[in-house]
Amino acid sequence: MNDYVHGYSSSETERLDDQAQVLRRLLHHDVRFREGAKVLEAGCGTGAQTVILAGNNPAAHFVAVDLSEASLREAAASVSAHGLTNVSLERQDIFELRYPDNYFDHIFCCFVLEHLPDPNLALQEFKRVLKAGGSITVIEGDHGSFFCHPPSEDISAAVDCLVELQRQKGGDALIGRRLFPLLSAAGFASVQVSPRTIYADDSLPEVVNGFSKRTFIAMVAGIEDEAIEQQLISTQRWRQAMADFNLAVGSEGTFCYTFFKAVGSNSG
Amino acid sequence: MNDYVHGYSSSETERLDDQAQVLRRLLHHDVRFREGAKVLEAGCGTGAQTVILAGNNPAAHFVAVDLSEASLREAAASVSAHGLTNVSLERQDIFELRYPDNYFDHIFCCFVLEHLPDPNLALQEFKRVLKAGGSITVIEGDHGSFFCHPPSEDISAAVDCLVELQRQKGGDALIGRRLFPLLSAAGFASVQVSPRTIYADDSLPEVVNGFSKRTFIAMVAGIEDEAIEQQLISTQRWRQAMADFNLAVGSEGTFCYTFFKAVGSNSG
Repeated sequence: MNDYVHGYSSSETERLDDQAQVLRRLLHHDVRFREGAKVLEAGCGTGAQTVILAGNNPAAHFVAVDLSEASLREAAASVSAHGLTNVSLERQDIFELRYPDNYFDHIFCCFVLEHLPDPNLALQEFKRVLKAGGSITVIEGDHGSFFCHPPSEDISAAVDCLVELQRQKGGDALIGRRLFPLLSAAGFASVQVSPRTIYADDSLPEVVNGFSKRTFIAMVAGIEDEAIEQQLISTQRWRQAMADFNLAVGSEGTFCYTFFKAVGSNSG
Repeated sequence: MNDYVHGYSSSETERLDDQAQVLRRLLHHDVRFREGAKVLEAGCGTGAQTVILAGNNPAAHFVAVDLSEASLREAAASVSAHGLTNVSLERQDIFELRYPDNYFDHIFCCFVLEHLPDPNLALQEFKRVLKAGGSITVIEGDHGSFFCHPPSEDISAAVDCLVELQRQKGGDALIGRRLFPLLSAAGFASVQVSPRTIYADDSLPEVVNGFSKRTFIAMVAGIEDEAIEQQLISTQRWRQAMADFNLAVGSEGTFCYTFFKAVGSNSG
């Protein structure tokens, strides 16, 4: 997890909070768990999704695990600030969970598999701790789904740098499109994937600010030094990409990105 | 209209019918007009959308216009075969409509602007014949929104050929992302655009067949001769793209494409 492509800075924590707010409705509106359900959030990070999940499902109990102590401290502060009492935070390795087989009613995993060299291994472990008849929900983005108006090859080149850096760290920034075969191969049944497309234009300033600028562009901007240092892109092209981003979030620009949500069940 | 990039063959008519069936719910479920409304469908082609619109809105009256006599004959046969009595078909040029100002309650225009060298001119004409307080609905695709699993640079190159050929004929295959600035610039008010993403995997055979194979791949396949003749792509690369398409519609493949629906009003 030292290889988390976006790093662990406090501006990264803010970026994740903005992302969670804008995406709350798009991704979470249909994530509901019954009263008393025991739900594992695998890879909770700083708790950006945890507080939404636990807030939306006050009668379910959440066990949110992550490997990073620093992230868990932030998650604890966030859970506490939201006054939530249905969340336990634990430091655990998602590849070797310290839970017995068939323990949880549901598993929730958001923006985690994209960073793993072998997401299938994690899915196998999730399946082990999931009860027969239990369900898994996986949410991921896909950076190859991004496009904007005006179209820009320089922006595409900058986004490609992010995909390449994530690949070097063992991840897959194009994992969203791959959730169906991944969950199927891990043995989950009745896998259903739905695209969740976020779109922004000048009539939607909260999406332009919360997603286009403060989530996506901030994420791309965050890899400038590494991309240029590795000579994945020239300084001049990088600057042009950032200028083109300004047009895409301007009054005549538009912005589009697709997340994927997959649900599967453990047929036992 | 002799430059319609996809041609006027009978297999093209079948392609449009398959497309209309799969997209019926995605694009049409929220297109509803009140009893007695007078609606212009600008550029109805062979009537693929017309029969859905008129069937979904039996109490509204539709005037569907197109420049092609051959397309109108097919549209008439389709309207008749569906037993619809609320459609008038007329041969008209959408740039010079033979209707007075402020004549229609609503305008509907689907998969038309993408083929026009100056979509703004058509939108101005639509605005002229639209009553103050009336609304316009525009639906377009965006070929730059397409992606699939496994990812394939050869497929991207083949799709780029389609975009280029459409550009040569004066069209814009990336128009979906541009609907907000286009409608705004034409003077429509309260413009709202929503992305409509179609996604296919092995659990959705009707989408794989109706959209991935018989709509999108068929459309790309249709430009093979022209693309190779113009040397936009090599024969070898084209063949690889088609082979990669087979993986994308196979049991471990996925397919994604985004349409855009825009609604605006005539503030007078």
